[in-house]
Amino acid sequence: MAVSVTLSLEDVRSLSTEVLIANGMSQANADVITDVVTQAEADGTHSHGLFRVPGYVSSMRSGRMDGKAIPEVSDAGPGLVSVDSKNGFSPPAIVAGKPMAIEKAKSQGIAALGIRNNGNLNALWWEAEHFGNVGLICLTMSTSQSFVAPWGGDKALFGTDPIAFACPREGKPPMVFDYATSASARGEIQVAARDGHSIPEGWALDKDGNPTTDPAAALEGVQLPFGGHKGNAIMIMVELLSAGLTGGNFCFEAQEQVDAFGGHDAGPSNAGQIFILIDPKGFHETFLHRVESLFERILEQDGTRLPGDRRYANRARSATEGVECPAALHQQILDMRAG
Amino acid sequence: MAVSVTLSLEDVRSLSTEVLIANGMSQANADVITDVVTQAEADGTHSHGLFRVPGYVSSMRSGRMDGKAIPEVSDAGPGLVSVDSKNGFSPPAIVAGKPMAIEKAKSQGIAALGIRNNGNLNALWWEAEHFGNVGLICLTMSTSQSFVAPWGGDKALFGTDPIAFACPREGKPPMVFDYATSASARGEIQVAARDGHSIPEGWALDKDGNPTTDPAAALEGVQLPFGGHKGNAIMIMVELLSAGLTGGNFCFEAQEQVDAFGGHDAGPSNAGQIFILIDPKGFHETFLHRVESLFERILEQDGTRLPGDRRYANRARSATEGVECPAALHQQILDMRAG
Repeated sequence: MAVSVTLSLEDVRSLSTEVLIANGMSQANADVITDVVTQAEADGTHSHGLFRVPGYVSSMRSGRMDGKAIPEVSDAGPGLVSVDSKNGFSPPAIVAGKPMAIEKAKSQGIAALGIRNNGNLNALWWEAEHFGNVGLICLTMSTSQSFVAPWGGDKALFGTDPIAFACPREGKPPMVFDYATSASARGEIQVAARDGHSIPEGWALDKDGNPTTDPAAALEGVQLPFGGHKGNAIMIMVELLSAGLTGGNFCFEAQEQVDAFGGHDAGPSNAGQIFILIDPKGFHETFLHRVESLFERILEQDGTRLPGDRRYANRARSATEGVECPAALHQQILDMRAG
Repeated sequence: MAVSVTLSLEDVRSLSTEVLIANGMSQANADVITDVVTQAEADGTHSHGLFRVPGYVSSMRSGRMDGKAIPEVSDAGPGLVSVDSKNGFSPPAIVAGKPMAIEKAKSQGIAALGIRNNGNLNALWWEAEHFGNVGLICLTMSTSQSFVAPWGGDKALFGTDPIAFACPREGKPPMVFDYATSASARGEIQVAARDGHSIPEGWALDKDGNPTTDPAAALEGVQLPFGGHKGNAIMIMVELLSAGLTGGNFCFEAQEQVDAFGGHDAGPSNAGQIFILIDPKGFHETFLHRVESLFERILEQDGTRLPGDRRYANRARSATEGVECPAALHQQILDMRAG
C-alpha cells in the first residue's frame, strides 16, 4: 500500500464536505469548515488540514459539538461585536460576525469581535487573512484545551493558546503570522507521534514533570510556554482576552467539559476567541507604504524571511501539483463517509 | 566612599525634578517624568529609574529632545486618539491623550491611542497600570532604537520593542506585565556592563555576528529576539502597530536620526507607541470574577507567580525603607543640578 496519496485541492474539498455532512454537519457549516481544511492543506499546514477531519467527526458523533449550530450575532456596543457559537465550530461563527465587525472597524477605526461557546480545530491564519484582505489589521487569539503548564509549574492549565496577526499590503496578500504560544502546537506533537519522530527539548515535560523529547510521553505529560516567562505572560493575556473577555471558557474549564464527555474526542468545549481589528487609514494615509519600507529592510538581510511567505509559496505550488495525504489518514476519512 | 546611598522616595522625587528642570524641562513635563522615575525606583525596576536621568538630561542638552514640548491631542475617529508628542518624551504625551482615550474606550467598548514623534526612556508598565486602574484592559507597545537583528539576520534593525499589558482586578492593583520583546531589555545589558556581570547566552551577538555573554561586546553588537522565530514575529507586530500605524519612526529610522546627532545621547527620536484599550464590561459583567478564577488556578501550582507581583512587593517595601542608588550614579545626577 502506498505511504501517501496525491489529492487535488478539489479532491480535498469534496472529501471533506461529504464526510462532514454525512456525520451531522449542516451544508452551510460544512462549506466553511471545508474551506478551512482545504486552505490548510493548500498552504502546507497539514496539522490543521485533513488531519483534523476525524476530530471534527468524533466531536459531533459524541454529541459534544453541534455541527448544525447557527451562530447568534449581537451588536455589543459601537466598537464591539459578540457572537455566540451555540456550541458549534468557530469558523462559521466568525463568518457570521465578520460583516458587522468589518463595518465597525472601518467606521470607528477599531473594533473587537468576540466569539464564545465555540469549538476550534482550525488554524487562526485562515481568519486573520480574511480581515487582512479587506484592508484591516487583525490581531486574534484563541483558547483551546488544557495542555500547557504555567511558568514554574508542572500541571496543565493553559491551552496551546494560539495568536495570529495580519497586516494588509498593497497589491500583495497580507503578511500573516500564526503560532501557538506554547513552545509547539499540539498538532506538531501529534504529527511527530504519528510519524515516529522525536520532538525538540523545551517543548514538554512527561507525566512526572521531567523534560522529554518523546512525543508520546509529551502527549501524556504537559507542554511548556514558548520563550520562558515572557511567553508565559503572553499566554495569560491570550486566556484573559479570548476567554475572560468574551465569556468563553478558559482552557482549564474547557478541559473539564471535554473530560465529562469521556475526553476521547477532539477540541475544546465552549471556548473563546477575540479579534482586534484596526483600520490603518484611521491614523494616517501612508500606512501601506510604510509597511513596505520595514519589510524591505528585513528582507535585505541574508537568512531572513517574512512570516507566512512559506505558506504562500506552498499555496502557489499546491494549486497545480495537489497535496500529499498519508494513505492511512486518507483511508480513515474515506471510512467515515458512511456517517 | 559608599558603594550605594539610601534614598527615600521623596529624595528621588525632588532630585529628579530639580535636575530635569535645571536642564531645560518644563515643570509640567518634569512632574510626569519624575513620577515615572520615582515609581520605577519604588518598584525595583532600577534600569528605568534614576539610571535613566542622565539620558533624559543628555538628550535635552544635545538639543535632540525638547523638554518643554507641549503634546497635541487629536480626535482621529470615534475609536481613535492621536497624540503628536512634538519631539517631547512619551509620558507627558500619554497623560495628555489619556482622558479622551478613556472616554472613547468606555463609550465605544474599545479604543486606540497612538503616540508619535516621542522619545522614550520609561518603562511601559507605568502607563499600562494607569489604564488598568480605571478598569480598562490595556495592551501597549513601543518602538525604540535599532538594537536587535531580525530572526536569521545579524544586523540591528528592530528595537527592544517593549510590550506591556494590564488587566484590572477588583480591590487589587491591576495584573501588569511589561517586557522587551528582545531576549533582554537594553537597560539590563547596560546594568550588567556597569556592574561587571556576564549576560546569559541567547541575548546577543557580538559585532562579528558571534554569540557572546560579554555585555560590552553585546552593546557593540546586536541583540536577539526572545523566543526565536515566534518572538521575531511579535517584534514585527510591535514595529507595525507602534510606529507604522501611529506615524512614528520605525526603530531603524529613529536610529538614523539619533546617529545624525552624533549617537551619544539616549533614547530614540520621533518614536511611536500604541495603546489598545478595552472596557471588559462591554462583553459581559462578570469579567472581574472570571479573572480571579484564572489567577487562583495559576497560583495553586507551586513555583508560579503572577507577572508584576514582585514589583508590587518592592513597592510596599520601598515606601518605608527607601531605595538603594549606586553612589556613582547618585553623584553623577547631583552634578547635573547646575544644568
